[in-house]
Amino acid sequence: MTIDCPTPRHEDEVVLLGHGAGGRLSAELLDQLVLPALDGGGGPLEDAALLPGYRELVISTDSFVVSPLFFPGGDIGSLAVHGTVNDLAMRGAWPLALSVSLIVEEGLPLAELRAVLGSLGKAAQNAGVPVVTGDTKVVGRGAADKLFVNTTGIGRRHGALHPSAALARPGDTVLLSGPIGLHGTTVLSTRERLGFESDIASDTRPLHRLVKALAPLGAAVHVLRDPTRGGLAAALNEIARDSCVAVEIDESAVPVPEAVASACDLLGLDPLIVANEGCLVAFVSAPAADDALAAMRSVPEGTEAVRIGEVPPHGPDGRVSLRTLVGARRIVEMPLGEQLPRIC
Amino acid sequence: MTIDCPTPRHEDEVVLLGHGAGGRLSAELLDQLVLPALDGGGGPLEDAALLPGYRELVISTDSFVVSPLFFPGGDIGSLAVHGTVNDLAMRGAWPLALSVSLIVEEGLPLAELRAVLGSLGKAAQNAGVPVVTGDTKVVGRGAADKLFVNTTGIGRRHGALHPSAALARPGDTVLLSGPIGLHGTTVLSTRERLGFESDIASDTRPLHRLVKALAPLGAAVHVLRDPTRGGLAAALNEIARDSCVAVEIDESAVPVPEAVASACDLLGLDPLIVANEGCLVAFVSAPAADDALAAMRSVPEGTEAVRIGEVPPHGPDGRVSLRTLVGARRIVEMPLGEQLPRIC
Repeated sequence: MTIDCPTPRHEDEVVLLGHGAGGRLSAELLDQLVLPALDGGGGPLEDAALLPGYRELVISTDSFVVSPLFFPGGDIGSLAVHGTVNDLAMRGAWPLALSVSLIVEEGLPLAELRAVLGSLGKAAQNAGVPVVTGDTKVVGRGAADKLFVNTTGIGRRHGALHPSAALARPGDTVLLSGPIGLHGTTVLSTRERLGFESDIASDTRPLHRLVKALAPLGAAVHVLRDPTRGGLAAALNEIARDSCVAVEIDESAVPVPEAVASACDLLGLDPLIVANEGCLVAFVSAPAADDALAAMRSVPEGTEAVRIGEVPPHGPDGRVSLRTLVGARRIVEMPLGEQLPRIC
Repeated sequence: MTIDCPTPRHEDEVVLLGHGAGGRLSAELLDQLVLPALDGGGGPLEDAALLPGYRELVISTDSFVVSPLFFPGGDIGSLAVHGTVNDLAMRGAWPLALSVSLIVEEGLPLAELRAVLGSLGKAAQNAGVPVVTGDTKVVGRGAADKLFVNTTGIGRRHGALHPSAALARPGDTVLLSGPIGLHGTTVLSTRERLGFESDIASDTRPLHRLVKALAPLGAAVHVLRDPTRGGLAAALNEIARDSCVAVEIDESAVPVPEAVASACDLLGLDPLIVANEGCLVAFVSAPAADDALAAMRSVPEGTEAVRIGEVPPHGPDGRVSLRTLVGARRIVEMPLGEQLPRIC
């Protein structure tokens, strides 16, 4: 008996939640659909791109769809500022200006909109970046879920600091600025009322001052990346792929707060794939590692910075592996799709 | 008998569709809620703002929520390019780069996403502006209506061309680059299947080349504005308010295509409040008016440019009036709220 299967796979024909998760499905969507369509207009899409004709200026854009709008440690307003400030910072840039664009569902209480905007304004002020322009659209009930916020930022790069996901080199030391897993588990726990949200809070915060502290090390800082969607696993896999190197990290060195570990245990999640909004990984040349660690620890958002691994001298290219607590070694895979939807 | 009314008016407590319509409700939301919250971070919000530290660079952002995604003459992809290119152009700027951020509803056919992105890429290429960075978020079914697109653009201003809605002066001539009402009536007719969509098409197109044609007139060009949401009525009222002048236009001079007039008649709409995406109004000093008209007519998107009115010498400030075909005079009011939701 043969099974005839003439119909296409329907799951391949529509957008899936996983297409927005920052993992393999996202990469496929980008590579197979978005980039071919837009290539005619310019270069490749990156998290923060150089402005043509202005080598020192970078641009980054992000739409925020987090649910719920408010969670311990932050809300969609502060997140929208920090997310874009951090994307600029990961290209070695200081934020100069932000635009803010709102899509509001008819019926949203004005008090909630006021609270989000107040938080957004305060976050921008605290980060020292002006909101210079904006836009507001309202759609009917049911056409959006409460409120979506887009921020786009322009930043100016620090002199000699030109980090890129493609610049990791064999011998590099891998640094992490703080504990992982807080943002994703906090949002998930708040949304699903799991109860962990009383013990944890999102790490959402701006990282541009942390990057500024690294600026004096200049070209010794090869890669900066904030492990948001897809978590540390996605960030390290992207770097390994884009730099054509292997990455090895020590499980014992990666700081996972106890409440995050408990939440992940219960949910069957790997903390390595949980989104963060207030830490970064830095790949720096080995001789500069101690100075980089000291620089990171010199600012409040980097006091818990640690060394978590290194780039081995001989590949295998693109592979991220973890030395476990019991001495074994396991591959850290690129997350496939959406385990934590609408986390940012 | 006294009527006690302790409960607040519920319609004041939530966001209404009209808050996004570009009229008086939009202005109230902006003045009373958005600006106070964000003022701490910087200057006032404008459609296109100057980048701090770079006097020649302007930024503009817009989120597009048009329904349906495809309509005669365009789609949300081309509209998202033209809208932001035009906002930059209205500040006298040439577009240097665009960012594109998508919010996609789970279940959107990939073919539709591909068509929109293809159109967006083509529109960017035709306008000569590279898409340099982007972002994609996916939300669950029912959490968004198919697809929303944010574009943010950076532009460089033409040397002496520094138009602003606040620069209209008594004696100015008011020019209009083409017929009005096409975009709004086309989208509405397509969405509601009214049948007019076989006779009309959106005027969506980039206007930066039209503005470039005006650049040699420099400071004689006082105001440029594309009458999008709220139509010509909103644009002229904003200019009259921001410049503290009156504006008088001739009904007989404002080009309204026959199909637009029929559609508006049937729908009870005033063509003056219907959104446009491919024309602009220019306020120029009277001695430069003939040259400005000739410059506009020298490019394809301005061949139908006409003189529609002037700024009278003695106010009353902020008032826009129309000399009707029968010689009467009526006030053109700022539209209140949403007569045409999700038109862009």
